[in-house]
Amino acid sequence: MRESEVIAEVVARNPTLATAGGATVLVPPGDDMALVELRGRRVLVAADQVIEGRHWAPGTPLRLVARKALARNVSDIAAMAGVPSCAVATVALPPDMPDDEVRALAAGLHDAGLEFRCPLVGGDTGTLADAGAPLVLSVSVLAEPGPSGRVVTRSGARPGDLLCVTGTLGASAGFGPGGHHLTFTPRIAEALALVDALGDRLHAMIDLSDGLAADAGHLASAAGCSALIEAGRLPVAPAIGWREAVGLGEDYELAFACDGPPPDAVCGTPVRVVGRFEAGRAGQVSVDADGMRHDVSGLGWEHGR
Amino acid sequence: MRESEVIAEVVARNPTLATAGGATVLVPPGDDMALVELRGRRVLVAADQVIEGRHWAPGTPLRLVARKALARNVSDIAAMAGVPSCAVATVALPPDMPDDEVRALAAGLHDAGLEFRCPLVGGDTGTLADAGAPLVLSVSVLAEPGPSGRVVTRSGARPGDLLCVTGTLGASAGFGPGGHHLTFTPRIAEALALVDALGDRLHAMIDLSDGLAADAGHLASAAGCSALIEAGRLPVAPAIGWREAVGLGEDYELAFACDGPPPDAVCGTPVRVVGRFEAGRAGQVSVDADGMRHDVSGLGWEHGR
Repeated sequence: MRESEVIAEVVARNPTLATAGGATVLVPPGDDMALVELRGRRVLVAADQVIEGRHWAPGTPLRLVARKALARNVSDIAAMAGVPSCAVATVALPPDMPDDEVRALAAGLHDAGLEFRCPLVGGDTGTLADAGAPLVLSVSVLAEPGPSGRVVTRSGARPGDLLCVTGTLGASAGFGPGGHHLTFTPRIAEALALVDALGDRLHAMIDLSDGLAADAGHLASAAGCSALIEAGRLPVAPAIGWREAVGLGEDYELAFACDGPPPDAVCGTPVRVVGRFEAGRAGQVSVDADGMRHDVSGLGWEHGR
Repeated sequence: MRESEVIAEVVARNPTLATAGGATVLVPPGDDMALVELRGRRVLVAADQVIEGRHWAPGTPLRLVARKALARNVSDIAAMAGVPSCAVATVALPPDMPDDEVRALAAGLHDAGLEFRCPLVGGDTGTLADAGAPLVLSVSVLAEPGPSGRVVTRSGARPGDLLCVTGTLGASAGFGPGGHHLTFTPRIAEALALVDALGDRLHAMIDLSDGLAADAGHLASAAGCSALIEAGRLPVAPAIGWREAVGLGEDYELAFACDGPPPDAVCGTPVRVVGRFEAGRAGQVSVDADGMRHDVSGLGWEHGR
């Protein structure tokens, strides 16, 4: 069972879900966030975690680990074109963790909450039973639709739409301390600007956590079409080839489908057309490079089992 | 550092918190849930986790573990007199966990969501790097105030108020498979009925997760007064003495402070007056038993470091 299936299995296609609780579920699991309606008010909600040994390298300052945990969630808010409201967190701590490291984690959560205007308002701290067990930091966030009221989901791309990305791809190569995955700023402002600039021409959006090949595949899969990437158009980080640019995860840029050309930049962040959606096998992603077409549907970062 | 201090340190007494994000924080961390206002709509939010080796015994079916993870959160909703809306979860799985156990966990989350009218609407599943690392299941919940609009916090008890509890104490003794901590039903209906029955005479409420000694201490501490329990009045489970009844955690009953007598029962669940709040050292809890007064302020279940 691949990890993406576990939570999905809980809720996917459950006809009773939408009316089971006090919330009406408008966008169900499978997108970057769920959209629920609470007595007429739409609220976005998501949860994400970082695990020692999986999401950061040994020696990474815990202040940055905490920032990353919140930033990943805020990146999901950007993917929906939402505005952050607040966060809650649970921390499972190794019993042998020194107090100053615990305080660094707490300070990192606090500071990141202020930085992203998504303050931590509650949570729980527990202790793992065994020394050496890995730290697990889980963060959940609430958000609201932006000023336009528009929420942008993963589905909605159409054959003929352009596939576009913000910023640079492949910058998290190496996953070392100080890397992009620890210091990125989620694209909240850029997402809201894209909604303003493109209006109804913005058809679908996702944040690049698994790599462009996988995440363009998620957009294509949700739309029942395929995607074609042109290697020569990719905005790659220095010393990164096209395979790494589409295969590495943790870019935390936006990828979106739009009808007609996007702006060259939003909020000072470059926007590039890197390909297009086509009628084809649902979810298939190909790259035109070196005069050949490469199927990259299987490529990408999956914290799989 | 005791666990209760870690999350609290992030946010306590931070003057910038209330206006840092899109949410206005009406009830800050330190209560059972945070209460935030999103553009005029009040939303309750909380997070809690269960950790293998700490919150369940080896051999416990994962379906019950999943139920417990959600039920603990829903018990926090009851403590605020809220109504569940929806939940999100993150699961950190040992890499060697068989697929059928993963499916049992997913099924447990799903079924509990329907049982408590608090459906899982999203989340994330990740894999721990090392075989043998403990499973960590984190759940966050959203809730709304009940029909009366009243949210009941931990603070508000006054000297002279009665200390009351629902149900029976000490039923989770042993923490074994099949125990009360795996099968309890959170007191959502009872909490709403208490708000209706007592109105403004209901001054403060908490759910009993750490044991009555510790949780009555939380009520007393928040109110700047002390609490006195009469051992002879405690509704103890069979074969349980008063020390266990006030010291064991995981009752998941309600404890509350009210001015004047409560109803004998709500929703078929007995309600007992077990003591009173007094002017005294803030947070001190004593038990009158065997003709003596015992200070039990240090007693209780803390998943401490």
